Amino acid sequence: MSAQHISLYEGKAKILYATDDPKILLAHFKDDATAFNAKKRGQIVGKGEINCTISSHLFQLLEASGIPTHYIDTPAPNQMRVQALKIVPLEVVVRNIAAGSLCQQTGLPVGKVLPYPLVEFYFKNDDLGDPLLTRDRLLLLSLATPEQLDQLKASALQINEILTDFFHKSRITLVDFKLEFGIDQQQQLRLGDEISPDTCRLWDESEEDPDRRVLDKDRFRRDLGQVEDAYQQVLKRVQETSRK
Amino acid sequence: MSAQHISLYEGKAKILYATDDPKILLAHFKDDATAFNAKKRGQIVGKGEINCTISSHLFQLLEASGIPTHYIDTPAPNQMRVQALKIVPLEVVVRNIAAGSLCQQTGLPVGKVLPYPLVEFYFKNDDLGDPLLTRDRLLLLSLATPEQLDQLKASALQINEILTDFFHKSRITLVDFKLEFGIDQQQQLRLGDEISPDTCRLWDESEEDPDRRVLDKDRFRRDLGQVEDAYQQVLKRVQETSRK
Repeated sequence: MSAQHISLYEGKAKILYATDDPKILLAHFKDDATAFNAKKRGQIVGKGEINCTISSHLFQLLEASGIPTHYIDTPAPNQMRVQALKIVPLEVVVRNIAAGSLCQQTGLPVGKVLPYPLVEFYFKNDDLGDPLLTRDRLLLLSLATPEQLDQLKASALQINEILTDFFHKSRITLVDFKLEFGIDQQQQLRLGDEISPDTCRLWDESEEDPDRRVLDKDRFRRDLGQVEDAYQQVLKRVQETSRK
Repeated sequence: MSAQHISLYEGKAKILYATDDPKILLAHFKDDATAFNAKKRGQIVGKGEINCTISSHLFQLLEASGIPTHYIDTPAPNQMRVQALKIVPLEVVVRNIAAGSLCQQTGLPVGKVLPYPLVEFYFKNDDLGDPLLTRDRLLLLSLATPEQLDQLKASALQINEILTDFFHKSRITLVDFKLEFGIDQQQQLRLGDEISPDTCRLWDESEEDPDRRVLDKDRFRRDLGQVEDAYQQVLKRVQETSRK
């Protein structure tokens, strides 16, 4: 990274640098891992490169299917050039199978296949602990317009279909995942952030055991061990499927 | 209470007894006060009688306006005969002004007048901490049908209009309140539970001070003192307005 790169924002998993072109940012993927709103902190060796590489494959897959993303290219294994977006302060979560906070908050058993994919919106706000939003609260806070909300939901469901299919080809069940969107200079909604074992729950299709099947950040959250192995496993399978 | 009365259910603020008629229950209002999902416990002297009397007035007011409630009569100051209902496991909260968990979860300032009344649904489940429900989660859990949900929302808004008007005549601002509904033997939705300073946020219209204006359970929750005085004040004004 050259001296003229100015750090614009350091998040929990990435640092965003300015480039010579104000429309383009450089995202540096870190090995730092956090969970429970950064109450738990650690490192996952190689995570930066793994997540950057997986995300690059998946962004290219989505672009090829007509989904606008912020992805431009990958100048280094842990660096991604992306379009600068005005971030929509929402975490859009798609759930195919009950897990995580959905189970804690509703009593649904972990692993219950949902009758249809659930699209949920969370307020991207660390101070408030990223709370779940009802449609009314989201509109009351002016976090999106009703039209944007419909667009976000439709896009999230379309992305879910593409990713579910891709991961299934990689013998992985896409349990749930978190998306972040932004608005580009043409006022178009565009997928941002990353798609990786940090932001998806991924279960090995060939494993029945509820702990052993976990190939995502839950291994870190729940101290299941072999975190790096799981991330490497996802990378390997994503690369294999991408090559086909 | 005669010996044949069998306690069917003891809640945080009321005990429900069976009567000779299986369609009728006797609700005994207690002085016990709890907050924060019963983590905080105490007593508010006279609360049982006050809340029973206020609720009786308000149920009769609503019945007179065509809202079906479980209210039958008040055989003693702290006892209410009610229709037995199959309870819908939802807390229906109507908010006119931002306060409480809405502010904690969204960052909205306490006291902000909402552009329109917000109707929110919470899962009535102590083990889960009565979590906020999105429409999707509510339907996923089969807690109500879409038709019931529309009916609950319409009824809650109608009740809000009637109560807001009544409390305003009592020089009290109805900030927000919680309703519980049940289904009677004719399969009709009917308002249950109670309407009192335990279940409503009520602010004295003539007070500007954010602590002194509080005439509801927030005095207990937030240790503001003069809890009994506030409950007595609401009773007095409700009785005055009812007499007009």
